Amino acid sequence: MQLYTKILLGMGIGVALGFLIGPNSAILPQDGVQLSKKAVVRVEASESATPAFLARGLKRAKLVQESASGFHQIEWSLQAPDLLRLQKSAKTDAQKTLLKQTKPGAQLTGYVAANSAAIKTYARIGQSAVDATEWLGRLFLALIKMVVVPLVFFSLVVGVASLGDFRRLGRMGGRTIGLFMVTTVVALVIGVGLTNIIEPGNFISLDDKASLLASYEDGASKTVSNAAQAPSMVDQIIAIVPSNPIKSLATGNMLQIIFFALMLGIALTMLSEERSKPVVQILDNLNEAMVMLVHIAMKLAPIGVAALLFKVVGTTGLSVLLALGVYGFVVVLGLLLHLSLTYGLIVKLGARLPFLGFLNAIKPALLLAFSTSSSSATLPVTKECVEDNLNVSNQVSSFVLPLGATVNMDGTALYQGVAAIFIAQIYGLDLTIADQATIVTSATLASVGAAGVPGAGMITLAMVLTAVGVPTEGLALVLGVDRLLDMFRTTTNVVGDSAATVFMARLEGENLQFFSSTEDARNPKKGFEGRLEASPHSVVPEQQD
Amino acid sequence: MQLYTKILLGMGIGVALGFLIGPNSAILPQDGVQLSKKAVVRVEASESATPAFLARGLKRAKLVQESASGFHQIEWSLQAPDLLRLQKSAKTDAQKTLLKQTKPGAQLTGYVAANSAAIKTYARIGQSAVDATEWLGRLFLALIKMVVVPLVFFSLVVGVASLGDFRRLGRMGGRTIGLFMVTTVVALVIGVGLTNIIEPGNFISLDDKASLLASYEDGASKTVSNAAQAPSMVDQIIAIVPSNPIKSLATGNMLQIIFFALMLGIALTMLSEERSKPVVQILDNLNEAMVMLVHIAMKLAPIGVAALLFKVVGTTGLSVLLALGVYGFVVVLGLLLHLSLTYGLIVKLGARLPFLGFLNAIKPALLLAFSTSSSSATLPVTKECVEDNLNVSNQVSSFVLPLGATVNMDGTALYQGVAAIFIAQIYGLDLTIADQATIVTSATLASVGAAGVPGAGMITLAMVLTAVGVPTEGLALVLGVDRLLDMFRTTTNVVGDSAATVFMARLEGENLQFFSSTEDARNPKKGFEGRLEASPHSVVPEQQD
Amino acid sequence: MQLYTKILLGMGIGVALGFLIGPNSAILPQDGVQLSKKAVVRVEASESATPAFLARGLKRAKLVQESASGFHQIEWSLQAPDLLRLQKSAKTDAQKTLLKQTKPGAQLTGYVAANSAAIKTYARIGQSAVDATEWLGRLFLALIKMVVVPLVFFSLVVGVASLGDFRRLGRMGGRTIGLFMVTTVVALVIGVGLTNIIEPGNFISLDDKASLLASYEDGASKTVSNAAQAPSMVDQIIAIVPSNPIKSLATGNMLQIIFFALMLGIALTMLSEERSKPVVQILDNLNEAMVMLVHIAMKLAPIGVAALLFKVVGTTGLSVLLALGVYGFVVVLGLLLHLSLTYGLIVKLGARLPFLGFLNAIKPALLLAFSTSSSSATLPVTKECVEDNLNVSNQVSSFVLPLGATVNMDGTALYQGVAAIFIAQIYGLDLTIADQATIVTSATLASVGAAGVPGAGMITLAMVLTAVGVPTEGLALVLGVDRLLDMFRTTTNVVGDSAATVFMARLEGENLQFFSSTEDARNPKKGFEGRLEASPHSVVPEQQD
Repeated sequence: MQLYTKILLGMGIGVALGFLIGPNSAILPQDGVQLSKKAVVRVEASESATPAFLARGLKRAKLVQESASGFHQIEWSLQAPDLLRLQKSAKTDAQKTLLKQTKPGAQLTGYVAANSAAIKTYARIGQSAVDATEWLGRLFLALIKMVVVPLVFFSLVVGVASLGDFRRLGRMGGRTIGLFMVTTVVALVIGVGLTNIIEPGNFISLDDKASLLASYEDGASKTVSNAAQAPSMVDQIIAIVPSNPIKSLATGNMLQIIFFALMLGIALTMLSEERSKPVVQILDNLNEAMVMLVHIAMKLAPIGVAALLFKVVGTTGLSVLLALGVYGFVVVLGLLLHLSLTYGLIVKLGARLPFLGFLNAIKPALLLAFSTSSSSATLPVTKECVEDNLNVSNQVSSFVLPLGATVNMDGTALYQGVAAIFIAQIYGLDLTIADQATIVTSATLASVGAAGVPGAGMITLAMVLTAVGVPTEGLALVLGVDRLLDMFRTTTNVVGDSAATVFMARLEGENLQFFSSTEDARNPKKGFEGRLEASPHSVVPEQQD
Repeated sequence: MQLYTKILLGMGIGVALGFLIGPNSAILPQDGVQLSKKAVVRVEASESATPAFLARGLKRAKLVQESASGFHQIEWSLQAPDLLRLQKSAKTDAQKTLLKQTKPGAQLTGYVAANSAAIKTYARIGQSAVDATEWLGRLFLALIKMVVVPLVFFSLVVGVASLGDFRRLGRMGGRTIGLFMVTTVVALVIGVGLTNIIEPGNFISLDDKASLLASYEDGASKTVSNAAQAPSMVDQIIAIVPSNPIKSLATGNMLQIIFFALMLGIALTMLSEERSKPVVQILDNLNEAMVMLVHIAMKLAPIGVAALLFKVVGTTGLSVLLALGVYGFVVVLGLLLHLSLTYGLIVKLGARLPFLGFLNAIKPALLLAFSTSSSSATLPVTKECVEDNLNVSNQVSSFVLPLGATVNMDGTALYQGVAAIFIAQIYGLDLTIADQATIVTSATLASVGAAGVPGAGMITLAMVLTAVGVPTEGLALVLGVDRLLDMFRTTTNVVGDSAATVFMARLEGENLQFFSSTEDARNPKKGFEGRLEASPHSVVPEQQD
Repeated sequence: MQLYTKILLGMGIGVALGFLIGPNSAILPQDGVQLSKKAVVRVEASESATPAFLARGLKRAKLVQESASGFHQIEWSLQAPDLLRLQKSAKTDAQKTLLKQTKPGAQLTGYVAANSAAIKTYARIGQSAVDATEWLGRLFLALIKMVVVPLVFFSLVVGVASLGDFRRLGRMGGRTIGLFMVTTVVALVIGVGLTNIIEPGNFISLDDKASLLASYEDGASKTVSNAAQAPSMVDQIIAIVPSNPIKSLATGNMLQIIFFALMLGIALTMLSEERSKPVVQILDNLNEAMVMLVHIAMKLAPIGVAALLFKVVGTTGLSVLLALGVYGFVVVLGLLLHLSLTYGLIVKLGARLPFLGFLNAIKPALLLAFSTSSSSATLPVTKECVEDNLNVSNQVSSFVLPLGATVNMDGTALYQGVAAIFIAQIYGLDLTIADQATIVTSATLASVGAAGVPGAGMITLAMVLTAVGVPTEGLALVLGVDRLLDMFRTTTNVVGDSAATVFMARLEGENLQFFSSTEDARNPKKGFEGRLEASPHSVVPEQQD
C-alpha cells in the first residue's frame, strides 16, 4: 500500500472512531461533567451552599446523578499532585484540616448547577480513549516539527549558494511577496462577498448566541489581551534581521532564520570556490540527513494522523457544530472557491500544469496539513512533494515554501473576513462598504505584521473587529469551531504555498513534470515510496591520533 | 603522582580544613550570627522593640555580645549594593531619612533573640575562608559542565552512526531501560526494608524535631510548591522529542539532545558513505576536542575538589549531623548494600569483571561524583574511565552513560524510600504494607517522570509523601543533611551507570579488559596520565582566496 | 567616492537635517505635545477636572491651543491596538461605555497643565520624519550586529588554533587585561581631576536642576532598581565559564563565548593535525563568510548612519543641552585628553606608529562607533580596519578586540568620574580626597564587574554614587544628555581597544604597516574598497547518493 493510502486510511479511522467512541459520542453514556473555570462546585445541592474547596481547579468529574433539584451530583478523587497544588492555595485552617484528612484517591462528592453554561457532559470512556491515544498524535507532530528549523536553514543556504546570482534571488523574492499579497486580498474579497450574500449571522438563534458567548468568554478575553500586546508593524519588519543568528535558530524565529540563511548563502557565493564548496557540501549532507528524518517520521504518519483526528472529532461538541453550521459552511465554501479558482488559475495559467495533477502530486502534504493544522509542521513534507513529484528545484522550493509557511495565510485571511462580518451580523451592526473595505485592508496588513506570531489568526481578528467597531467579545461566537475550521484553513494555505512554488519555478524556467508513484518506487531517491528500503550501514570515523 | 592520588589528596585536605577552620569549626571563635529569613533584628534588646529597617535582608552579622537578657547584640555594615537594595524597599519617610544618613561601611548595631531557631552562630574567620576559596570549586565545576552538552551530542551521533544497525540500538535501548527500572525497584526495597528494621525515626528527640522543623521550614515549603508545578508523566515523555533541536542544545535538555543525536545518527547511516562520512568525521574531531577539554579541566580537579569539600564540610552544622546521625547512617548503609550487592552482581555475573577491579577503574569518576554531587558533571570523566580503563566502545558508552546520568537514579530512589518512612516514623504514623508498596511504586514512577528536572530528588519525595498521606512539612526534617547525603547518592548513581555500561558492552560482545595506569602512561591516548604531555602545535588554515 | 567619505557625508546630512527638520527644529512649528508617564490629561481645562480615560498611556498629541488659562488644549485619536489596550485596563462601566462609543481614528480632546515638567512640545512634522526614517538606522544596526556572535566565535577559535602556543596566549591575555586596568584608572583620574578644576556643577541654575530632576525621575529610579539587582563580582567572574557553550552562543554572552572559543582553540592545537585541520579550515571559511557579510552591511552604512544621527540630533532637547552644556563640555574634553594623551602614548611609544596615521586607518570604525554608540556592533568593522589597514594578524585582533569591546570601557569610566562629582557639586556635597579615591576605585571595580551587562554605564554610576553617599536621584540630572555623550564615550572606547590591539601586535613582534585606500583598491581582499566587486558565482554541492 502506498503511504498516501495509509494516511487516508488513518484519517478515516480517526474520524469514524471520534464520532463513535469519542467524548461526544452519541452511543456511549454521557457520564462525565466537564467544568470550565467559571463552574462552581458546592458541598450541597443548593445555590447558597459553600463552594467545595477540594474541587478547586477541578476540570472533569464523574456524573453520579443528573438534575436532582436543578443540580448534578458529581464525584471525583484527588491524586498526589492535586493535593500538593491545593496545599499551595489553602489559606484558612478549615481548608488545611480538610486537606490533611483527604487521602489520595479517596472519593469526593459535590454538586453543580445543571443548567449552567460552565459545565458540559461527556462520555468518560471516550475521554479515556482520547487520553490514551493523544500522545501518539503529539509524538508524531513533534517528530516532524523537530526537523523544520535545521531543514529550512540547511536547505536555504544550499539553495541560495547554488543559485549564485542574487539579482535572480531578488526578482524571485519580489514576485513571491507580490503574489502572496494579491492572493490574500482575493481571499479576503471572496470571504467578505460570500458572507454578505449568504448572511450566516441570520441563521443563529438568540439562545445559541447567549450560550456561545458564555462558553467561550475566557478564550475570547485572553485573545483580546494578547492582541493588545502585539508589536507594531515597523518593529516586526525590523525584527526580521536577527541580532544573533544562533538565538534565532534556538528560538525557531522562522523569518530571522530565512534572512540569515539568505545572507549566508549570498556571502558564500562571493567567496572563492575552495572556501565555499566544503561548507556548502557539509550543509547539503546535513540537509539530506534531515530529509531522511522526515521520511522516517512519515512512517508513523498513518497512526499519528488517526490519533490527531480522533481527538479533534471526539472533543468538538455537536451542539456547537449545529449552531455554527451555516457559518462553517460559508468558510469552507469560501476556501474551496479560493482554492479552485485563485490557485487553479495560478497553477493552470502561471505554472502551466493541470490543477488536479498538481493536487494529486502534493496530496501527502494536504492530508498532513488537514490533520495537523500546522503549515510549518507540514513544510518538510510539502517540500518533498514539490521536489520529488513535480521536479521543482531546491533553489526555488527552499526559498518560497518557508516564506509562504510563515507569511502567506490566505485561508486565515478569508476566515477573518467571514468571521468579522458574521459577528457584525449577529450583533445587528450594519457594516458600510467603507467598513468592509477597512476589513480587507486591515486584515491584509495584520496578516503581514503578525507573521510568525503563534495563534495569529485569532489575534488579528481581534484587531480587525476593533478597526470596524464590532465588540471583541464577539470572538467567543466563533471560537467553538476554530480548531475544526483551522484544518481547512491550513490545507488552503499549504495549497497556496505550493501553487506559488510551482509558479515561481516556471518563471525561473524550470522543467516541471509529474512523477508517478510507480516511478518513485523505481527510484528510491524520489517520493515517499522506497526511500527507507536502502539498508543502513555503519559509518566509522577514521582514528587520526 | 597519579591524577587519582592528587584528587584523593585534595579531598582529604578539603575535609580536614573544613572541620578545622570552616564556619562550624570547634577551635575557631563562634563570633558570627547567621540569620534566616524569619530572624527579626530589633533596635533594642526587647521583644517589643521595633525591627531594624537597616537589617532587612541581612544574612550574616558579627556577634558582639552573647545573650544580654536573652538577646544577642550584633553588628554589621552595609555596602553600596545593600543600600541600593534597601532604597528600593524603603516605604516610609523615616526609612528614607535613615537610609540617607547611612554611609557605606558604617557600623550598625541591633539585637536578635538568642534562643531563636532562626539564628545560628558560626566562625567568621571560617566563613571568610569559605568565601575566599568557594570560587575555585565553582570554577572547576563550571569547567567540566561546559563540555557536557557538546560531548554528549557529538559522541552519541558518532557512536550511533558507527553502530550502523538500529535493531542493535533498539535492543540495547530496551535492555538498558529495563535494567534501570529493575535496579531502581531493588534500591527502593533495600531502603524501605532497612528503615523498617533500624527505625531511625525513634532515635530523634522532640527538641531536635522542633528545631529541625523550624530551621528548614522555608526550604520545605519551597520544595512543595515546586512539586505542585511538576508536569504530568505523559507530558514529560512526549517532551523527549524536541520541537527544535537547536533549542534543546541551547537549553541543555539532555533527553531531547539524546533523542535528536540518536535520530541524526540513524539518518546518517541511511545516507551514502560519501555524504555521511565527512559529517561523522568532523563531529568525531570535535568530540576529540571536547575530550581534550575534559583532560585540561581535570588538571584542576585536585584544587577544585578540595574547595568543594571544604565548603560542604565547613558549613554543615554539627548539631544537625548529630540529630540526624542514625538516619544518615541508614541511608549510607543502604547505598553501600545496593552498591556492593546489586551492582556487584551485575558487574560480576553480567559483565564478568571482578567488582573491585571495576571500581578501581572508575575511581576518578567516583571521587568526582562524590565531590560535585552531580552525575551529569561527572559524565565526561565517567565516559573516559569506562572507555580508557575498561575498553568499552564509544558506541555503548555514548548511549548508556548519558541516558543513565539523566534517568537512572537508584541512589536517589533509595534515599526517598528511607526518608519517607523516617518522616512517617517521626510523625508516629503507621504505614501499612500497602502504603510501603505505594512508596516503592510512586517513587519508581516519579524517578522516571522527573528525569532531568533539577533538584528532582526532593520534589519527587514531596510527591511520595503526599501519596501515602505523610505531612509534607516533614521534608524540613531531612533537608539539613540533604547536601551531604547527595554526595553518597550521586556516587551510587555513577557506579550504577557504569555497571550498566559494562553489562551492555558485554552483551554486545565487546572485549572488556583492564588497563593499568602504567599502561596508560605508555599510551598517551589512554587514561588520565600523559594525555596532556603531547606538545601543542599551531593549526593554520590555508588562505584560499 | 571612498566608503569613508560616504559615511562622513551621511553623518553630516543626518546632523544637519536633525537640526533643521527634527522634532526639536526651531524653524518648524512646535505643534505637538509629548507626554511623560506623569502627565495628566483632563477632560476640562481645570486642575479639578477628572483625568481623561481615553488619554491613558498617551505619549504624543496634537497641540490645538496653547495656554488657555494655564492649560494646553490637545487633540489625539486612537487606533485599533490602542483601543484593545484600553479595553484591558477599563474597570468601571463608564469607562467601558466610553470605549464602545469611541471609533478608531475619531478625534479626541483634552487638556494638560501648560507649565508641567511632564510635558514637552515638539514639531509634529519633524517627528513624522523621524518615524519614517528610524527603521533605516535600526535595520543597518541589526545587520552588523547579526554578524558579531559568529564572527567573534569563528575568528577566535581560528586565531587561537593558529597561535598554537598557549604560553604566548597567556602572556598576551595578562598584558591586555593589565593594560585595560591601567588605562581605566588613568581615564578616571582625568575625569575626576577635570571636574574638580572646571566645576561644571556651579554652572547649573536651581530652575534647571528642578526641571531635570522632574523630567528624568522615571529613568533614574529604573536605573537604581536595576543596579540593586546587579550580581556580585565573584558571581560575574565565575559566570565567564559557560555551563553550556551553545547557550552562551544563543544568548550572545560575549565573555562566555570568548572563553569557550579560547578553550576550543587550545584543545584543537593539542589534537593531531589530521583531526584539527579540517575543523579549523571549515571555521575559517565560515569566518570569511561573516567578514563578507560585514562588507555587505557596510554598503548601507552611509544611509544607516544618516538615519541614526538624524534621530539623536532631532530628539535631543536644546534646553537640556544648554542646561548641561558645561557638563557635556567637561566630559568631551576629558575624553579628548584621554584619547590624545593616553592612547597617543600607547600608539606612539608602545606600537611605534604615528598616532594620526593610526586614527586615519581606523576611521570607518570611529565613525561607526560615534553613530551607533555600540562598541560591540562596531567590532566587526574595527577588526577589518586593524587587519586590513594596519596589518595586525587575526591571532591578535580576534583576541584583544572582542575582549576590549566587552571589558574595556575607559570612556564610560571617565564619564562616571565626571558625572559623580558633577552631581555631588549640584547637591552641594563636599567630596574629600578619600571620597574621590573611592570613586576611582569603585568605578574601576564596577567597570570590571559589570562587563557585558547592558546599560552598564548608568548602573555602575548608581553604585559609585551610593559608595560616596551622593543621592541616586541625582542620576536624573545627567540622563538627558546620556545618549549624546554615549557617542563620544563609545568612540573613545573603540580607539582604546584598537590602541591596545596594535600595542599587543607590536609586542608579539608583528610587522605593522599602513595600507592606503589606493592600495586597498588594487587588492580587493584588503580594506573596504573593491571587496564586493568580485562577481558572485554559484556553488553547487555534488550529488552523492
